[in-house]
Amino acid sequence: MTAPVRLQHGRAPLGITEVTLTPGSYLGDLQDLNASATLPHAIGKLDESGVIANLASPGGEAHRGFGFSDSDLYKTLEAVGWEIARTGTTAFDGFLDSSYRLLRAAQQPDGYLNSWGLSADSPGRWVDLQWGHELYSAGHLIQAAVALNRAGRGELMAIARPVADLIVRRFAHEGTCGHPEIETALVELYRETGEPGYLTSAKGFVERRGNPVQHTKPFGPAYFQDHAPVRDAEDATGHAVRQLYLDAGCVDVAVETGDADLLAAVQRRWDSAHRRRMFITGGMGSHFQDESFGDDHELASERSYAETCAAIADLHLSWRLLLATGEARYGQAMERVLYNAIPAAVSEDGTSFTYANPLQVRTGGRVVEYNSGRQPWFSCACCPPNVARLRASLAAYLAFADDEGLAIALPAAATLELPPQVGTGRVVITGDLEAGSLTVTPEADFLPGMGLRIRVPEWATSPQVDGAPAPVENGWLSLDTAARSTVTLDVTPTAMVADARVDAVRGSVAVQAGPTVLCAEAHDNREVDALAIDPNRPLTGDPTGATGSGAVLATGEALYRRFGEPAGDPEATPVTLIPYREWGRRGRVAMRVWLPTVDL
Amino acid sequence: MTAPVRLQHGRAPLGITEVTLTPGSYLGDLQDLNASATLPHAIGKLDESGVIANLASPGGEAHRGFGFSDSDLYKTLEAVGWEIARTGTTAFDGFLDSSYRLLRAAQQPDGYLNSWGLSADSPGRWVDLQWGHELYSAGHLIQAAVALNRAGRGELMAIARPVADLIVRRFAHEGTCGHPEIETALVELYRETGEPGYLTSAKGFVERRGNPVQHTKPFGPAYFQDHAPVRDAEDATGHAVRQLYLDAGCVDVAVETGDADLLAAVQRRWDSAHRRRMFITGGMGSHFQDESFGDDHELASERSYAETCAAIADLHLSWRLLLATGEARYGQAMERVLYNAIPAAVSEDGTSFTYANPLQVRTGGRVVEYNSGRQPWFSCACCPPNVARLRASLAAYLAFADDEGLAIALPAAATLELPPQVGTGRVVITGDLEAGSLTVTPEADFLPGMGLRIRVPEWATSPQVDGAPAPVENGWLSLDTAARSTVTLDVTPTAMVADARVDAVRGSVAVQAGPTVLCAEAHDNREVDALAIDPNRPLTGDPTGATGSGAVLATGEALYRRFGEPAGDPEATPVTLIPYREWGRRGRVAMRVWLPTVDL
Repeated sequence: MTAPVRLQHGRAPLGITEVTLTPGSYLGDLQDLNASATLPHAIGKLDESGVIANLASPGGEAHRGFGFSDSDLYKTLEAVGWEIARTGTTAFDGFLDSSYRLLRAAQQPDGYLNSWGLSADSPGRWVDLQWGHELYSAGHLIQAAVALNRAGRGELMAIARPVADLIVRRFAHEGTCGHPEIETALVELYRETGEPGYLTSAKGFVERRGNPVQHTKPFGPAYFQDHAPVRDAEDATGHAVRQLYLDAGCVDVAVETGDADLLAAVQRRWDSAHRRRMFITGGMGSHFQDESFGDDHELASERSYAETCAAIADLHLSWRLLLATGEARYGQAMERVLYNAIPAAVSEDGTSFTYANPLQVRTGGRVVEYNSGRQPWFSCACCPPNVARLRASLAAYLAFADDEGLAIALPAAATLELPPQVGTGRVVITGDLEAGSLTVTPEADFLPGMGLRIRVPEWATSPQVDGAPAPVENGWLSLDTAARSTVTLDVTPTAMVADARVDAVRGSVAVQAGPTVLCAEAHDNREVDALAIDPNRPLTGDPTGATGSGAVLATGEALYRRFGEPAGDPEATPVTLIPYREWGRRGRVAMRVWLPTVDL
Repeated sequence: MTAPVRLQHGRAPLGITEVTLTPGSYLGDLQDLNASATLPHAIGKLDESGVIANLASPGGEAHRGFGFSDSDLYKTLEAVGWEIARTGTTAFDGFLDSSYRLLRAAQQPDGYLNSWGLSADSPGRWVDLQWGHELYSAGHLIQAAVALNRAGRGELMAIARPVADLIVRRFAHEGTCGHPEIETALVELYRETGEPGYLTSAKGFVERRGNPVQHTKPFGPAYFQDHAPVRDAEDATGHAVRQLYLDAGCVDVAVETGDADLLAAVQRRWDSAHRRRMFITGGMGSHFQDESFGDDHELASERSYAETCAAIADLHLSWRLLLATGEARYGQAMERVLYNAIPAAVSEDGTSFTYANPLQVRTGGRVVEYNSGRQPWFSCACCPPNVARLRASLAAYLAFADDEGLAIALPAAATLELPPQVGTGRVVITGDLEAGSLTVTPEADFLPGMGLRIRVPEWATSPQVDGAPAPVENGWLSLDTAARSTVTLDVTPTAMVADARVDAVRGSVAVQAGPTVLCAEAHDNREVDALAIDPNRPLTGDPTGATGSGAVLATGEALYRRFGEPAGDPEATPVTLIPYREWGRRGRVAMRVWLPTVDL
């Protein structure tokens, strides 16, 4: 199967060639916009930002940008790989050929390939493992090579394997990278080649974590998840993307080596992240300073960082856990980021991107580069090509096959070709989550004992099948493999509150409709900084937008006043809400997901 | 008068030799602990941290610590100066002599004196004005020299003036420092010497701000207050200490040059800071990342930075504005930081210090260097010696004289010698703010037309004089110059709420008793992370501690749930509160200033 995560052991994802997202559907549009706009845009930016020049003269003129700039190219190549796998396009052949030439010329006789490591800016090869990102960049090269190989383009494997082989030799007994990524990459290369040395190497990188002698400046070992062995670390902590990438690698190693202990450790940290450290949009990482997870329940909207790459990483991790365990909650997490945190990161035209994804923007709020709304590129350009590789492979995150049959993890309009272990033919899904209606039509012969099931979102309180209450079991609903079923879900806008320990949004609600978190923007509402909503009055609308009854809260001269001394009366006003993922499209103005409650 | 701010034009502060803080009183204890513990501790740390070694071999071995490490010595010398002025002690003479020898040996023939600027680590003298802090360090040298000179020790002036003269020449037409400090220092040197060139130079440094070509990495010009001219900048923004130091310099220049426009600009920014960007403790600076002011009303307890130096800087600024305008609100701000943010920074034994001053610490919260509670020193050691110089000069912030007579800005137990322009004799104050009772006894002959007034805090709702309602006018209360008066203030614990736009503490109250903000610690309360208080039930206690009725809020498995679905019932529990400034004395545990409200 042509998929980013192809487990040797565990549930088998349906790949890009097995799943066709329906054009014009929500997920289909995300994928198509990526192909038509984001991918060409990213390729153009590689040149402009110096990525190509760095590789064209490694060790020559000064290295431009961050040490990991090569990875911008690799992520883009990976996206191209999935795009070729999906459509068979030859539009990128020129880009591929010039990239291969560039990389072949830059590669050293022993396989080493990293424009920063070869430049005068670095202290030498493999010296600054903490900040140099050489293993991280190599990981993305490997991922790109695997993607292209799965699309029938093997040329990059001939470049990536010597890199991987060098790493396997060089890091046989010691060393970890300051930024995880090599771990998942080596496991995937093992899956692609069957070469057990790659899996062993990945396991080494994972198991060597927790040596706090390394990785101490300036943020301390927890930033790098080097404060404790991966089996012992309790919480999702430190730099959010690093933590989530590392845990994805841990799942890969655990699944392929049958390591239940390691898998349980990751599940524990996943709980830490999702039950105590996640914004309602699925965003992760509360702190600007070190792009890190905050403390438990430290989830301030006003300085929510929620890096785009962390949302993508969360989808990678949750998908792996879903394949490893079959538990619906992991699919729920994927749904959350796919309808909120991830799409919020990309503009309507597909060519500008967020880095941080705040849940609140105040009137006159200060703008700095990484919270400046959607930008065409960033000096640290990790997010845009990461979006591109995810969206190009989106179809491969929809469904999987296991001993029970076919499971639809992300209900969406698509056509699924049955893998041979389940049966022959296909399953056609129409409708979508936001419409609250999905019709699943099997046009297939299921093998005996093979069933068809669909994940029912947690927000759907009274799901129905063909008008009758649906017997949901552990988040899954069994469907007839021989007849069409229509699943109905209530997508009425609903006010949500947070755990009492989330101080930042106390006395406030966020409105969610189906999978979609809504927000209030100054384009549609006045006085957004003091805007309140009455959650006891009905909300009308659906995931595309909603209205409610609200008020502008009174404010006074004093910043602090005695309890019981009112600043004035709230002034009634309607509240108009749009999907969070669409914030800032009409210009960056005051916005908030969480609205104070008021009784009208 | 021996005072840190001795205006040529404006109200005249009573100096250290005119004001004696009563031993055993609140402010007296702060000062005495500083003399007996903090100052000797700081002197010891200068050696240990490399400050002395840097100056002993400038340009020799590698420079240790930050480029501004010399300023640690200068702030300590300034503190010694005020201590000598206050007590005439000779205990520091050895330290002074060795410091003078060190500095004389390090000083270059043209006056230049900066161990970092002379070291191989710097790009050369005056090259990296943005991060090198050479002018900042020189400013602290000048402040130390002025303090010692006012204490009758002129030796350091002979070292500092060549530095100042060099700066006046070198920066006659261009240049600003990345960290303000030179501005106030040069004005004070002008006041001390009468040399107008220093004032002109200070004015140049102030007026040259707002050139965004400079000061751009990594945080952008607003971090350095270089985004707009000082007359135009609307808000308190960027690095909090830098903003407040700069504005103190602006007031000094404005007052000495009669520049009402510049003064008005500072008052506008003071309002921005105090009405929209200040924690209830007086702490300032919402962001860890750049130690900066947040947006309006962005005041999250959970990541409040509130650097110790910013609270000290706020006192410096508010005092200058009080002297410039006579407006009581500036004294109120001083009181707020002197009872809360500043004393919280120092341990009971005077030898450990906070850097950040959070309003909330969660159970199991992550600890990093600058929010690790009180530490003996920091790698960036700006705060401890800054505390020392402030506390050594504390007496000089109590009262001032003007055309109307003597004004007591900070009511506290002390003896005030009348300056000749007001009369002869003294005024004795007993009692203190926290006791809610102050007895003011004039033992003096006031000149005709000269009165005596005392600032009445804003929290005192029904102040009385000798049992009768006190006629407070614009925050001031006139007292009899010939007879004893007793002022009574209600210090009952009171629940306070914040402006509706302060999202972080919505649905919560902070308890304040008199000048003192209280907090709940896990030492005295269970489940502090979910602890709530009923503000409608009586609070008992006073500024030294209080109790109230509260509850532990119910929490569930889910991080987010539907509005109206309770997580469970709150469980009634008493709430015990201690002064915020005493948090962490029994160990760093969960703590919070703001408590959710609950109806019991």
